[in-house]
Formats: sequence, C-alpha cells, structure tokens
Amino acid sequence: MTDFDYDFVIIGGGPAGRRAAIQASKLGKSVAIIDDQKMIGGVSVHTGTLPSKTIRESVLSVTGWRDQHFKSRQHRDGVKMMQDSINSRLSTTLGDEVEVIDSQLARNNVRILKGRAKFSGIHKLAIQQNSQGKKTSFSVTADKFLIAVGTKPFRPKNIPFNGTTVIDSDSVAANLPMPKSITVVGGGVIGIEYATIFSALEIPVTVVEARERILEFIDRDIVANFVHQLTERGISLRLGRKINKITLDNHNCPNILLDDGRQLRSEMLLFTAGRVGAVDNLGLEKVGIECDSRGRLVVDRETLQTSQPNIYAAGDIIGFPALASTSMEQGRQAACHAFGVPINHSGNSFPLGIYSIPEIASIGLSEEDARLKGYQVEIGVARFQETSRGHILGNCKGMLKCIFDLSDRKLLGVHIVGEGATELIHIGQAVINLNGGIDYLSDNVFNFPTLAEAYKVAALDAYNRLPKPRLRA
Amino acid sequence: MTDFDYDFVIIGGGPAGRRAAIQASKLGKSVAIIDDQKMIGGVSVHTGTLPSKTIRESVLSVTGWRDQHFKSRQHRDGVKMMQDSINSRLSTTLGDEVEVIDSQLARNNVRILKGRAKFSGIHKLAIQQNSQGKKTSFSVTADKFLIAVGTKPFRPKNIPFNGTTVIDSDSVAANLPMPKSITVVGGGVIGIEYATIFSALEIPVTVVEARERILEFIDRDIVANFVHQLTERGISLRLGRKINKITLDNHNCPNILLDDGRQLRSEMLLFTAGRVGAVDNLGLEKVGIECDSRGRLVVDRETLQTSQPNIYAAGDIIGFPALASTSMEQGRQAACHAFGVPINHSGNSFPLGIYSIPEIASIGLSEEDARLKGYQVEIGVARFQETSRGHILGNCKGMLKCIFDLSDRKLLGVHIVGEGATELIHIGQAVINLNGGIDYLSDNVFNFPTLAEAYKVAALDAYNRLPKPRLRA
Repeated sequence: MTDFDYDFVIIGGGPAGRRAAIQASKLGKSVAIIDDQKMIGGVSVHTGTLPSKTIRESVLSVTGWRDQHFKSRQHRDGVKMMQDSINSRLSTTLGDEVEVIDSQLARNNVRILKGRAKFSGIHKLAIQQNSQGKKTSFSVTADKFLIAVGTKPFRPKNIPFNGTTVIDSDSVAANLPMPKSITVVGGGVIGIEYATIFSALEIPVTVVEARERILEFIDRDIVANFVHQLTERGISLRLGRKINKITLDNHNCPNILLDDGRQLRSEMLLFTAGRVGAVDNLGLEKVGIECDSRGRLVVDRETLQTSQPNIYAAGDIIGFPALASTSMEQGRQAACHAFGVPINHSGNSFPLGIYSIPEIASIGLSEEDARLKGYQVEIGVARFQETSRGHILGNCKGMLKCIFDLSDRKLLGVHIVGEGATELIHIGQAVINLNGGIDYLSDNVFNFPTLAEAYKVAALDAYNRLPKPRLRA
Repeated sequence: MTDFDYDFVIIGGGPAGRRAAIQASKLGKSVAIIDDQKMIGGVSVHTGTLPSKTIRESVLSVTGWRDQHFKSRQHRDGVKMMQDSINSRLSTTLGDEVEVIDSQLARNNVRILKGRAKFSGIHKLAIQQNSQGKKTSFSVTADKFLIAVGTKPFRPKNIPFNGTTVIDSDSVAANLPMPKSITVVGGGVIGIEYATIFSALEIPVTVVEARERILEFIDRDIVANFVHQLTERGISLRLGRKINKITLDNHNCPNILLDDGRQLRSEMLLFTAGRVGAVDNLGLEKVGIECDSRGRLVVDRETLQTSQPNIYAAGDIIGFPALASTSMEQGRQAACHAFGVPINHSGNSFPLGIYSIPEIASIGLSEEDARLKGYQVEIGVARFQETSRGHILGNCKGMLKCIFDLSDRKLLGVHIVGEGATELIHIGQAVINLNGGIDYLSDNVFNFPTLAEAYKVAALDAYNRLPKPRLRA
C-alpha cells in the first residue's frame, strides 16, 4: 500500500500511454490516464495515424485506384460524393477504434480522467476540468508518472494559417478538403502521405522541401523509384527550396514566393514541416524537467526515465522515430521499468512504414548506411511486375530491394515501395532478426501468386551475382 | 557433346516445366519445352491458378467487396457489365503473364516446340503437330526428360457435362458464367474458391461434399471460422452427402438427387471433385512408367526421378500438394539432379494458400497434427477486429492462430483466415523455419496499422496463458 491515489498516472491517452496503462494494470498496479480530449486515443486516433490511413484507404476505394490498370479512372464530377464518402468512412472507423480502446481500458481497470494535467510536485498533478463552461480543479497523487502527451503541428509565425486555405495536417484529418490545387510544404512522412493522397484524387499537387531529397532516411533507390512514380503522376517537386514569403490574394488563395524568386499559386497550402511537443502548461519547471527548442523531452533510452527518476516519458514527445508502433513498445517498457519488471531489450530492428500512395516500408540498413558501416554488400532487386501477383493486381510499379552481407550471406536490410509494402516488410524483418539470409530466401517456397515472391526474385537476383555462385535459376 | 538433339526436353510449359527449363539453361544445357497449347503457360496460366485468382480480384473490385462495411453493396443490375469487366481484366492479365513467360524463356534460350509429345524410346519423343488441319510429325531426342504435363478435370461418366449448365472448372476459367444459382460439387480448394467467388457476386450457392468437412487438411478452428462466414453469407453446405443421380430438366437445369433422398435444383452445376493426370497418349508404356488410377506418376521424392532414371516428373502430375509454388521448386530440383548439381533439401515447410473469399493460408502443423505428434502446445488467437488495420479496411472477420511448443516456446504452425492471409503467412513461415517462437513475436515491433500486428496479439494471447508467465501486457 502507498499513500498515493494511484501507483501510476499517465498523461496522454495515445499509443504510448494506453499501452503503458495496460501493462501496469496487468502488473497489478492502480492506473489512471489523464486526457483532455473529448475522446480517448491521442493524436494517433484523432488527427494523426488513423485518420490519414483511413483517408488513404477511402481514397483508394472511391477513385478505383487499385484497378487503374484495367479501367479508366473515375472522373471528379462527384467531388462532393467522394468527400462525403471519405468523411463518413473516417467517422465509422474512428468510432470503432475508440470503442475498442474504451473497452480495452475498462477491461483492464484503467481509470480515465478528463482534464488538463499540470505538475505541482514530483508526486502530484493539478487537474483542471472544463465542463459546460464551468471550470473545476482537483489534485491527483501517484508514485510514478508517464508523460505521453505527444506532439502538435509546428506553426511558424510567418505562415498565415487561417484554417481554410492555409492549414496544417490536423485540419486535413478533421475534414478532408478538396481544393482545386494544393501546395504541400514539407517532404517528410506527413507531407508526402497527404501529397500522394491529394494526387490520387486528381488534385494538382506541388511539394516544397528545403532539403535536396524527400524522405532522406529511406534507401536512395527506393526514393528514386517513388519520386519517378510521383512525377509521372504529375506531382511537382521543388527540392532544396525555402519559402521566402506567403501572401493571400483576393480570394484568400496563397501565393508562395520561393527563395529562388519563383512563385507558386494554389487554392490551398498544407504546412507539414515539423511538429512540436505538446508540453505547454505541463508544469515541467516545477519538477525540474527541461525540453529542447521543439518541446521534446530527453530520456534515458534504456529505462525511459526523465531527469526526474519517478517521471517517465514515451512516444512522440521523446522524438525519433515517433511512430505509433515504437511508441507502444516504449510505453510497455516504461511501465515494466517503473514496477521492477526486467525489460528484454532485444535490439531487434523496428520497421518504418510510410502510408503514401504507393506505400513505402523499410527494415534494417539502407545500402548507403551498410556501405558507410564498412559492410561489403550484394544487392538484390525485384520489381513487382516480375511477379504474377503484380499482374493480377494490375499494380506493377512496386520494387523490393534486399541488402545482403557478402561475408556471411545474411540479410542486412529490406526496402520496399509499392502496394502492401508495410505488411510485406515483416517477412524481411523476421529473416533479419532471426539471422536468416540469401539462402533462406532463395530456397524458400512462397505461395503463388503473392507479392511476397518478390523476396525470392530479389534473393535470386543477388545470388546470380555472388562471387562464387552455386549455379541456379 | 552428346548425340542427342537436346540435353533436356520438358513436356509441359506450366510452372514445373518452365522453372526446370530455366534452371537447366542456367547450367549451360540445351533445353526445349514441348507444349500443345496455343500459348505457353500450362493449366496454371490458362485454366487454373491465374484465371481463378484474377477472377477473384475482379469480383472483389466490381462488387465493392472490400468496402462492404462502409457502404451498401452494388446490386446485380449490371450483370453483363460485371461479366464483361471481369473477362476483360482476365484477358489483360493472362496476356501480360504470357508475355513475361515468353520473354523469360527466350532470354534463357529455351526452345518452345508446339505439339503433342509421345515417348517412342527412353531417349526419344515423337512430336505431332497440327497446323491448319495439316498433321506433321517429327522426332526429338534428349539425354534427360521431364514430364510436367499437369492434370485435367476428372469427369465421371454419371455427370452429364454439357459445357453450359453442367460444367467443370476449366469452363469457368475460360469465361465466367453468371447463373441465377449454382451447385458446386466438391469442397476442396477449387470448389471452395469458386463457391465463394460466385457468392460474392450474390449468386446463391450450394456446396455438396462427400466428406464430413471441407478443406480437411486445414486447422479445424480456421475451417470453423470460415464455414461460419460462408453460412452467414447464405452459402449452403451439404456435407457428408453423395450424389445419387443428376438429371436435366426442360430448361437444361440440373436436378441433383442426393443419397439422403433430398433434391437440389439450380441453374448451373460446377463439378470440381478431383483432377486426373494428363497422361493420355504420352506413350508411357513404351518407357515402362506406370501411373495410378488417377493418372498420377510415382517419383523418388528426393530426386524426382520416375522408375526410368533419365525421365523425371514434377508438378501436379506427381500429386500432393499440387501447388504452383511447390511445382516450381520441384522443377528446379529435378533439373539440378538431372545435371549433377547438389540440391539443398532444406526441409523447410511450404505454405498452403487458398484464394477463396476470404483467403485461407497455413504453414507448419495444425493444432490437431501437433497434438497427434505428441507436442504439448499453447494456442494464441488474434481476431483482425483486434487490430486497427482491420477497422480501417472494414474487414473485421479474419483470424490468425499460432501453435507454440510448450517445451521450447517455438512456433509450430500458423493458420489464417481473412484478407491478405496468403501474404501474411510468410511472416510465420520465416519464424518457423528460422527457429523463432513466442518471444520473438511478442517482443517484435510491427508497423502500425497493419494486419501483421495480429501475430503479436496472438503471441501475447498465448503468453498470458503460459505456465509461468513473465507478467506483461
């Protein structure tokens, strides 16, 4: 027994917070989540991961994207209908998800407290509730805390956000707009996901990115293939270009002046260049925890403790990779450490998944990184058009690239662009983490017809170029 | 140098034959394929695997199957349009596939000879060609042969096949019919695939199967879930029932009398109960090779040699599992053995993939088989509705079942029913073949949102019931 109200109080009901709560509850601890949203779920459910993935799936459906090889695409005469169909699907999916989360937390006796939390001591939070205009506040004490408040869009002062023609990604997720043209600022994951979604809706898209490459953490061959697909579809990329100034014309349409003097006009501007930690009014100064200029917290990456040992942090608020998948694992690990359960730091690689159209996924080392680390490598490439499944789906533009270590024939990395990439990557992940390599993949029997066969095609491609090949097909 | 026309002559241009040809060619051998079809590809391309999978994909597309959770399904007022759309997609896909095969064989210098082959000696074939009504014949000699002639539908005498209302699976693949109702005889892979395809087109379907279970080689829980989905959709199953008699009424509609005295009427009957080896007129008696009552050849399963050591057989003609995937591997192994290249018999499990709606896939041991073999097992189950990806796809009816060995925590088998099963199974396959188990799957970070997460859910489900669990969420 402790003198605290709870053993574990978690600020934020996103993937990291929920998973930490359930883990602590399974360890027999009393747990509460403080969340100031109307519905539980965090950015992941309400404005981030799930909405964008759901919009993506709806767009593929309403535009007949998957069947484009076989029939001419639908035209945009039914814009309003498409928009309604997408938004209705979004609300069904998020409703289902909130229901699942609610029942999962209830089943595990996790208490949900609505309100804004602020540290008033290292074991104490002040909670402010705002119900029908009436403010109330009370205190909650706990032995351990987890800060899992996530991030919010970064809104620089020189961007004239107005919620209608100059927006951030939260606005898109709340209600998908259908502008006649759009400029997306930022060539990171969020910018690229939405750029390709708008493009699939046959809306002209221009992407502006200050760096020379988009998705710079992804293998170069994969990005090159992806960029080729994007430009073929008419997406215009302005790389290595900064924004000097944005003005609004008489119709409120943004007019963007680039640093090379060129101008971009479009009906809408989506600004996605960065997110900042949602640490405002958390009272971090009261407990001696500091954040960096983008509101990120520093933690011990082994234990997930902040500089205040009984206060943990996990999820987007601690920075890279800021994925729902890794955030959940961090939440679990924080709860385990907080209550004395050893954590198995398997050191296994985690995958990256980008839900653009087409998808991109990645596990292990890129070719560049492998060479930088001094590996001698052989590369195997398969194009989806070399698999029968690719023909059946009519989706022949994907590619899969495997990086093999020449010294021991092990698989070092897999990088995929194309339909199903985010699922397919887990085959490579298992092979890498369980020490398989080129012989496993080239001898393996895959279901026919599947896209997974691309692994075998890629392995045989590399095999045929090995220094002393056993002869084979 | 030999005195023969070719080093290797292959009868049949299906998956086994093509793969053997390419392997032998890569070993520097002169190779020819004899095929009597208009276009290369075998049953797999023309009437079997590819057509049924392509029809399946088209049906999912024209009926809006994947989005049914979000909108009411389209009605059948556009039957002719759907049929045209499906058949046109079929011809595009098969055309693409034949092109890929042709160019692959040409690139590998494999000679294609059109005609019917008949052994006239252990190193000699008589080839009969029939071009514009004019018959010509010539001989071809070779050092080694591969029989890869595949199978054709079994047509028992008491079934009044007429090509219009009483048909076999070859007729379906040639031109998808759209009857008002259909009875499918045979609850094996082909019967079930087409039964679920017709049902997705909202055609009333009855399946008659002589055994008490359909798909009896699949884990019982998976079949139970699948059967539940089928019956919910209104597919009627008559199990343990044989056919006494089939008559045709005035409109040529089949009237089926079952052995329990009940009658079934439908506009069409599809007979899928079995296939027989296509060994007619192959001249096997000339080379002392015998086949069983269903036209199957017996081979040494290590070397793929028939009783005549220079004559190999591979693919459907040698029986179970008769999958394109395993046939390709057999073709490769036969060519390697024929030309003195050691074969790596990895003993790795191969997957089963059933392209029904929904898909079924399986790797390793079923729960029944594991118990029969004396394993003590723990079972982990995940329902797709427990994953966010399931909500986004609106496809919540799938399930994934893992069988773990209690003694060493290794994964023994995975069985999946649901969208994407045939691709997802390869993750479990890699874990089984590379000796992973419950700890790998429960610690692993999967992309979010994916269906692959179901592996982690299933592993944690089993984990929580292990004899001495480490506590975890």
